[in-house]
Amino acid sequence: VIPIETPYQLVSKHHQPEKTIVKVGDVHIGGADLVVIAGPCAVEGEEQLKKTALAIKKAGASILRGGAFKPRTSPYSFQGLKTEGLAVLARVKEEVGLPAVSEVMDPREVDDAAIYLDLIQIGARNMSNTPLLQEVGRQKRPVLLKRNPAATYEEWLLAAEYIAAEGNTQIILCERGLRTFEPYTRNTLDVGAVPALKEMTHLPVLVDPSHGTGRWHMVPDLSKAALAAGADGLMIEVHCDPERALSDGRQSLHPDRFSRLMEQLRKLKQTLEQIK
Amino acid sequence: VIPIETPYQLVSKHHQPEKTIVKVGDVHIGGADLVVIAGPCAVEGEEQLKKTALAIKKAGASILRGGAFKPRTSPYSFQGLKTEGLAVLARVKEEVGLPAVSEVMDPREVDDAAIYLDLIQIGARNMSNTPLLQEVGRQKRPVLLKRNPAATYEEWLLAAEYIAAEGNTQIILCERGLRTFEPYTRNTLDVGAVPALKEMTHLPVLVDPSHGTGRWHMVPDLSKAALAAGADGLMIEVHCDPERALSDGRQSLHPDRFSRLMEQLRKLKQTLEQIK
Amino acid sequence: VIPIETPYQLVSKHHQPEKTIVKVGDVHIGGADLVVIAGPCAVEGEEQLKKTALAIKKAGASILRGGAFKPRTSPYSFQGLKTEGLAVLARVKEEVGLPAVSEVMDPREVDDAAIYLDLIQIGARNMSNTPLLQEVGRQKRPVLLKRNPAATYEEWLLAAEYIAAEGNTQIILCERGLRTFEPYTRNTLDVGAVPALKEMTHLPVLVDPSHGTGRWHMVPDLSKAALAAGADGLMIEVHCDPERALSDGRQSLHPDRFSRLMEQLRKLKQTLEQIK
Amino acid sequence: VIPIETPYQLVSKHHQPEKTIVKVGDVHIGGADLVVIAGPCAVEGEEQLKKTALAIKKAGASILRGGAFKPRTSPYSFQGLKTEGLAVLARVKEEVGLPAVSEVMDPREVDDAAIYLDLIQIGARNMSNTPLLQEVGRQKRPVLLKRNPAATYEEWLLAAEYIAAEGNTQIILCERGLRTFEPYTRNTLDVGAVPALKEMTHLPVLVDPSHGTGRWHMVPDLSKAALAAGADGLMIEVHCDPERALSDGRQSLHPDRFSRLMEQLRKLKQTLEQIK
Repeated sequence: VIPIETPYQLVSKHHQPEKTIVKVGDVHIGGADLVVIAGPCAVEGEEQLKKTALAIKKAGASILRGGAFKPRTSPYSFQGLKTEGLAVLARVKEEVGLPAVSEVMDPREVDDAAIYLDLIQIGARNMSNTPLLQEVGRQKRPVLLKRNPAATYEEWLLAAEYIAAEGNTQIILCERGLRTFEPYTRNTLDVGAVPALKEMTHLPVLVDPSHGTGRWHMVPDLSKAALAAGADGLMIEVHCDPERALSDGRQSLHPDRFSRLMEQLRKLKQTLEQIK
Repeated sequence: VIPIETPYQLVSKHHQPEKTIVKVGDVHIGGADLVVIAGPCAVEGEEQLKKTALAIKKAGASILRGGAFKPRTSPYSFQGLKTEGLAVLARVKEEVGLPAVSEVMDPREVDDAAIYLDLIQIGARNMSNTPLLQEVGRQKRPVLLKRNPAATYEEWLLAAEYIAAEGNTQIILCERGLRTFEPYTRNTLDVGAVPALKEMTHLPVLVDPSHGTGRWHMVPDLSKAALAAGADGLMIEVHCDPERALSDGRQSLHPDRFSRLMEQLRKLKQTLEQIK
Repeated sequence: VIPIETPYQLVSKHHQPEKTIVKVGDVHIGGADLVVIAGPCAVEGEEQLKKTALAIKKAGASILRGGAFKPRTSPYSFQGLKTEGLAVLARVKEEVGLPAVSEVMDPREVDDAAIYLDLIQIGARNMSNTPLLQEVGRQKRPVLLKRNPAATYEEWLLAAEYIAAEGNTQIILCERGLRTFEPYTRNTLDVGAVPALKEMTHLPVLVDPSHGTGRWHMVPDLSKAALAAGADGLMIEVHCDPERALSDGRQSLHPDRFSRLMEQLRKLKQTLEQIK
Repeated sequence: VIPIETPYQLVSKHHQPEKTIVKVGDVHIGGADLVVIAGPCAVEGEEQLKKTALAIKKAGASILRGGAFKPRTSPYSFQGLKTEGLAVLARVKEEVGLPAVSEVMDPREVDDAAIYLDLIQIGARNMSNTPLLQEVGRQKRPVLLKRNPAATYEEWLLAAEYIAAEGNTQIILCERGLRTFEPYTRNTLDVGAVPALKEMTHLPVLVDPSHGTGRWHMVPDLSKAALAAGADGLMIEVHCDPERALSDGRQSLHPDRFSRLMEQLRKLKQTLEQIK
């Protein structure tokens, strides 16, 4: 099944047959634990973030997400609180007691971000931004690498290889939906990426059903689907007031719904481990 | 959530809020039962089919599939045993005691096929073949309508509406993968179609992970994913000798693996019902 | 450049290096003539059709188009005048003195249609409708085979091979746009199909910029582009009252604009022949 | 035709109805001149570049291209000569007497690159790299912004708006092919982008048929098509020894063929101006 000659090397199962387990704070990603990263699309302020962080922690999430640098299609959309957002995230994660992840977009911001964060995210639009990949490859924090909505599996793994080739092999892959012709959803979530990647790489694979659909109604069913397909975890947008969110409110779960979902996912995960 | 004005009418949840349960032989599709359609891509002969039929029945499958008229990309590929294939399928399903489904491609063959079959399949390439849709809409057998790999949800539901508008509302939808740029898989399975369709229509939704991936290794994980996403059932290719199959051997499960998968799916289904 | 082993045989340049010239009435397609098929999307009535037919003939079009059987996404949209539409088309083409093309969708209608028409069109949705392909392959009229918006070049040529394998090699290919993620246009016209097909097949290749864009503003520029890319001709929707057209008004040219375009195309064609 | 409310402002035709003419050295892009940017994919050395530069100048090209920082899918592929490549390009362009364009990928390299170059290219993978867009928006050189192969027209124009919003409105757009399901070509060139963009923006639009197809055989026909569709110019890969090119040899024209093509394009352009 594993081709001996692949254009990617360090991240291939041929190079390393056993699974990589990435440690983010005390959380182990790639093993038997149910790992859920949750939080708002953007850090909008300390109060908003803390309220959501407490709720997701209580519900059982493992890692707090919150965007400080927001890659927006329009220069006139809210661009995030930037470094101030990172600082807010750092304070809240300490208070609440959860490791935190946030996206960086600029190679000049990587070193600063690494001070604030436990996990550095490369967003979908920057999957092929090689100077950025190399920069996160040269620092010590683990990296969450989202798939570009038009990237093949091989291109995605080669982007991971750019990071690994600089010395950092603590890489988590995250599927977040493909660009297709379907107008009903924001993207088309490629759940099949999970078993496909498991054949190709030893790196853990997460799924983000929030960006993958753009519709919160679909998030619970696709969260279950991703786990059932073998995903090592999920990344879910949760906002304490989705209708007033500064970005992506339509795809964010309210904490109550998230809490019910977490309960379901725990039972599902138990069964999935039994029937493996 | 349900828009009042949709271009499709009879198949919309606005027209009929309660789910349609389609009866195929004694099998109810759209209710709480785990429904799995299984069998070879093509009917290759009576012995081959019976051997596989017995195996899938023993494993717990509900409906036997087997292609008699095969829509092939090349005129020089095996085109199926045609009417003789239908006759073989009819004999085997009687002997084994399973209802049967097979594809029709020509409106002139619909009435004959309806004699042999319990469920008539419209394949992905014919989803927009309106004379064929109308013809199956005018007869009494239930219809399995596969999604074209480049069709939107709305176009798919409008194809179902063509059938319903002729009087036959016993329609089952089946997602079988989108055409994308990804070369690793034959198609990209759109598991999200399940929750999306559940918001739009009262018709049952199945998933076919065999065509959806083209790789038998990925079939078990995506079968679980489809169930977890809320699918009413699955359509899985099983062949007693995949390496010698006249078509689609690469995506067919061996009966032993299928049997193990069915066991897993039963336990999974039980948990999914509990956490609903 | 021409691979010796291709899955298509009769339609490949390896099988026949010299170009096929298809004769439709007195029109030769595939040679040096500028061939433009024009007319309304649908035959709506005799008066409408005749008015448009006279205008396009005067402007220099070679063949009259008009849909009688309309493949519509919704069963509640205008489906064409059907056989009556064919009869109207036959009367008008005689009066005006132009050969005519129209689409068939049902294998049962092919023989009748062949009586009325000079060229039989297989529409994009039916490119892989093998019973229909075989039926038009068994009769004597030339066939215009449109590309499905999600078909590869090879699949398209294999569809043509289905026709050729039945004995009819008078086949014209017509590119009409791909399904992509772009919402601005109805489809994305693949002008590159022209030089690509010229490397692969001896059959003539036309381009339909009306369906290819869905926007009449873009039709003149893409008509010129298609000719410049080496297309053997064009298929353009013209309607004498686009705003009241029963289908596809947004992509139809008014006869005045069509006339100006034809003038430009003649001069362009002359230059293109000179610089060959 | 021009919607008053567009998410992009500075680059819209509503904001500025008259066309922008971008001056690169002495070359005016966006007016009546035939503008062709040509040269090798990558700067491989001074001799190679100079030989090609002399040839393309003689053939009538206006601007020299040559990649110094190469965005490659694999970290193990040739990554370009980087700053040394820029220096070589700067020496050669002076000697030969042509303005030069090259790609930057890292915001930290923009100011240096602006010293060497007359036109700064943002490549397709970096179309949504907002820190990079903002950085080139803050310096004085004109910018060539390639379309991402999965970007809509609106997203592309919003990327241009990021540049314009920083003060630099000397922006040239360049279509270079979409990612589709077609395996025959590297990308599917969207020639229709030219008339579409002309409806939306006052910025000049170029077309790159080399990347748009990945096959040199198709470059001449698609160059003509792009001009006929109204493109303000072309970007064509030319290499004096394509079979030994360190990257993209398959899509590069030999100087002799490029010279013949330029002759054809001049005559075509003349006719296109006449029939406007």
